[in-house]
Amino acid sequence: MSFARRVAEIEPFRVMAVQQRAHELEALGRHIVHMEIGEPDFSSPAPIIAAGQRALQQGETRYAPVAGLTALREAIAGWYRQCHGIEVSPQRIIVTAGASGALLLISALLLEPGRNLLLADPGYPCNRHFLRLVEGRGKLVPVSATERFQLSAERAAQHWDAQTVGALVASPANPTGEILNRADLTALDALCRARDGSLIVDEIYHGLTYGCEARSALEIADDVFVINSFSKYFCMTGWRVGWAVVPEDYVADVEKLAQNLYISNPEVSMRAAEVAFAPEVLAQCEANRVRFQAQRDFLVPALREIGFKIPVTPQGAFYVYADSSAVTDDSYTFCVDLLERSGVAVAPGIDFGNHLARQHVRFSYPKPVPVLQEGVARIRRHLRR
Amino acid sequence: MSFARRVAEIEPFRVMAVQQRAHELEALGRHIVHMEIGEPDFSSPAPIIAAGQRALQQGETRYAPVAGLTALREAIAGWYRQCHGIEVSPQRIIVTAGASGALLLISALLLEPGRNLLLADPGYPCNRHFLRLVEGRGKLVPVSATERFQLSAERAAQHWDAQTVGALVASPANPTGEILNRADLTALDALCRARDGSLIVDEIYHGLTYGCEARSALEIADDVFVINSFSKYFCMTGWRVGWAVVPEDYVADVEKLAQNLYISNPEVSMRAAEVAFAPEVLAQCEANRVRFQAQRDFLVPALREIGFKIPVTPQGAFYVYADSSAVTDDSYTFCVDLLERSGVAVAPGIDFGNHLARQHVRFSYPKPVPVLQEGVARIRRHLRR
Repeated sequence: MSFARRVAEIEPFRVMAVQQRAHELEALGRHIVHMEIGEPDFSSPAPIIAAGQRALQQGETRYAPVAGLTALREAIAGWYRQCHGIEVSPQRIIVTAGASGALLLISALLLEPGRNLLLADPGYPCNRHFLRLVEGRGKLVPVSATERFQLSAERAAQHWDAQTVGALVASPANPTGEILNRADLTALDALCRARDGSLIVDEIYHGLTYGCEARSALEIADDVFVINSFSKYFCMTGWRVGWAVVPEDYVADVEKLAQNLYISNPEVSMRAAEVAFAPEVLAQCEANRVRFQAQRDFLVPALREIGFKIPVTPQGAFYVYADSSAVTDDSYTFCVDLLERSGVAVAPGIDFGNHLARQHVRFSYPKPVPVLQEGVARIRRHLRR
Repeated sequence: MSFARRVAEIEPFRVMAVQQRAHELEALGRHIVHMEIGEPDFSSPAPIIAAGQRALQQGETRYAPVAGLTALREAIAGWYRQCHGIEVSPQRIIVTAGASGALLLISALLLEPGRNLLLADPGYPCNRHFLRLVEGRGKLVPVSATERFQLSAERAAQHWDAQTVGALVASPANPTGEILNRADLTALDALCRARDGSLIVDEIYHGLTYGCEARSALEIADDVFVINSFSKYFCMTGWRVGWAVVPEDYVADVEKLAQNLYISNPEVSMRAAEVAFAPEVLAQCEANRVRFQAQRDFLVPALREIGFKIPVTPQGAFYVYADSSAVTDDSYTFCVDLLERSGVAVAPGIDFGNHLARQHVRFSYPKPVPVLQEGVARIRRHLRR
């Protein structure tokens, strides 16, 4: 057996293992409260499902153009026009299999041995593993609650070295729900521009903000990379449709990489996604957002009450990244115990980086409030054991 | 702009560009005969489409287990039992987004800077680009018609060097349709075993053989990697469902890579694929196979008659890899001209490697015979111009 060296260095996405174990326990008859996986527990809006069924009815089951169906790319461009008042050429929009597909393409495009990309720690764990896949490296910059867990231009400048080719940030971010405002994005763009690097902004949680609006990096500049997806706001996780917006000069090469790496995305999923911007779907997404906000507004104080520290109320996504140092000295062991003994599945901080990782836990809250109540009650009892 | 070096070295999958240009010409009102893309021009069998619709009806639109739905993995294991009389543990079967997803995982698992994998030239072009993605290298071994375009153990042994970690072969092969028989596979397996390397066999065209049967490498050994897909035999290209069978000891690490690289495959596609092995679907696939055989039996002599050399009649897949040296001294220019001037889309040999590439053309023949007749008639006229 001869594994590539990267295999030992790429860590499991532990939340997936937590979910798998939770399902095993359920198969044994246990009742589990799921607060681990980043998806709502309901299906996609009905018009999306109906559009998928229609596409199948019409026999649309063949390879599609590598960059995505033209109608879908145009619909996404229309969405930027509608939400952000900006013109993005559909040619620059490359449809991918979820945001994961976009991360693969951008990593392949920019990274290679010796090169690194700055990433906030904590952050979405797979980011650094995509970079490792292509023999580049994620240079983790520790960020904490006092800086809203975001990588600022100032901090990025401090960590930028001769091998750095850019910065990958997320807004709203996973696991913290924190947002980069227009000034943050402008400063990051200016830094990357000055250093001849690329700014990559993961906007997969766009639309899911509470009491504020997330700006798109595309409002600031045309030469940024933006990653997005239908998974979260449009509740389409299982369809695997996302997109990348890439600077004009990179389009042809991104398409070339896509031709080689996956040929085509699922046609039925793209047809379904085409209707995601229809008013009746958006109304439902907005209703979901309001529900998520109420769930957040229940969960944050409830967690604070039982001993978790949450210095800043998260403004977006559907996660709470809570400081567990007052209730445990090792959040990983805590998460394992909590699932096994008390039937609550949550994600350990070590999934999201190294910085203070063993004193944080991520709670995913797009669940009915009674479910969250039961989860909190079980955690309360668990802590008293 | 700072591209990774690999970007310049990864070539476009030209057949995709040919198809795109063909669609552009069609949009201008031209009629095009399509013999470029490797897919039949009809939709998936009706029970597969119905199963997809049912899954949507049931709201199955969420993340699925990373290695695929258990029922699907079990169904694939059952298929190995039924077709090959062998027991393959469902645990070893990792569902992927087409064969492309399997190539990504296996490349990530085995290749790294300095390492290479032996590949037949001509062969599926994306193979070497997957290896380049992870900074490994495909070591192309020229193979010709006299050796049925296949990489033999003997030739592999000659080209094996200190950096070689295995061989990736395909049976039936793209672009040649040639098959590896049991003795070929046994010898390759023995070589890889003796050299402490891995044998990877791409069996994506399994089921599509004419007058012979393709053996699975899994009949020979348990410690090989096998790549397969629902795309070709089951006419499911646009759904993006394939699979890898990996040796037991690699399963956990392959799952770990998959968690990071794509989280989940499309749920609706997996539900649809579950019914692919039902008798009524298999009956339709068999009827398709008989039709493909008749199409091959028309096309091969017709191409020979107009000047293409096809020394061995291909035994599988749905391609003819024809020697065009008697009709053109540059098959790439020929393909471009043929599309622009005569409206026939075919794939140039340079898509599939370097060895005698400019004197070969790949014809994809899963089309009604009248379409193939029209294509041949146009090529005949084109050659007389």
